[in-house]
Amino acid sequence: MKDLPLAEVYQLIEPGPVVLLTTAQAGRANVMAMSWHMMVEFTPPLIACIVSGADFSFTALRATRECVIAIPAVELAEKVVAAGNCSGREGDKFAAVGLTALPASLVRPPLVAECFANLECRVVDTRLVNRFNLFVLEVVKAWRDPAQKNPRTIHHHGFGRFAVDGEMLKIASKMP
Amino acid sequence: MKDLPLAEVYQLIEPGPVVLLTTAQAGRANVMAMSWHMMVEFTPPLIACIVSGADFSFTALRATRECVIAIPAVELAEKVVAAGNCSGREGDKFAAVGLTALPASLVRPPLVAECFANLECRVVDTRLVNRFNLFVLEVVKAWRDPAQKNPRTIHHHGFGRFAVDGEMLKIASKMP
Repeated sequence: MKDLPLAEVYQLIEPGPVVLLTTAQAGRANVMAMSWHMMVEFTPPLIACIVSGADFSFTALRATRECVIAIPAVELAEKVVAAGNCSGREGDKFAAVGLTALPASLVRPPLVAECFANLECRVVDTRLVNRFNLFVLEVVKAWRDPAQKNPRTIHHHGFGRFAVDGEMLKIASKMP
Repeated sequence: MKDLPLAEVYQLIEPGPVVLLTTAQAGRANVMAMSWHMMVEFTPPLIACIVSGADFSFTALRATRECVIAIPAVELAEKVVAAGNCSGREGDKFAAVGLTALPASLVRPPLVAECFANLECRVVDTRLVNRFNLFVLEVVKAWRDPAQKNPRTIHHHGFGRFAVDGEMLKIASKMP
């Protein structure tokens, strides 16, 4: 994994890919699939996300205030769905799903080795957690796997239907 | 435009498409391009979004607490970029960009006739507006254009680069 400049993080999250969220509590790491997230600020990069109170990850995220957002390419789609279909309550999900945890640099939750990008995050605002399960995260360190060129991401349309990135358009724009 | 059941709204927003946001204030409608949004709840459908304080739409959204989220297919990409490249301060953006405003049913901001879906929204939480420009919206009425079959949406990667929806995957999943 190579450094990804923090100012480029929004370019990976703004398109709305399905991501994985890792947490760690009491020495035990967990991973879930997540589609409800958005950019909040460019730099430092802030990301908001919804983690259901029914998810095992919710407790860890609220208690430890740390997570990693890992972005899978389409080749991991089966594993992403598998991660969404079981709970960390039942045991080691990394092993169950076939994903590899790697140590992060600034937070305890692990990176996901198979993902083309990994974002180490700390919770910076919890005011909307009680009403909406909405966390605001700051990305404190970001990584990119240079071996994965032009990864195509997946976008969830519900019930296991995913749109895969197709052609890229380029239109002259003043917007970052 | 036909009724879209509110319980199906998440299937259109969760994939992360670029959308248009319309507002209206003092009898004047405006429209902007937006990519920083996410689902917050299935039913009633709640959506969070970031509207920059620099955007003319911000003032209208905060004051009137109403908007419409309209979802364009790829055929509208040039107009979406045009909407992102000028400000409503300068005049009627619908006319400037070549989009058609249609009356909504429950809110004052207009629907966008060319979009395949339109979501009429009211602001339900503003606690994170001052710190993050983050609004939480409730979708109170949703519309779909039945003439647009299998629309392909666009996903912004920054600086006018967009991924267009490609192939659809279907993987057996327990997740809605």
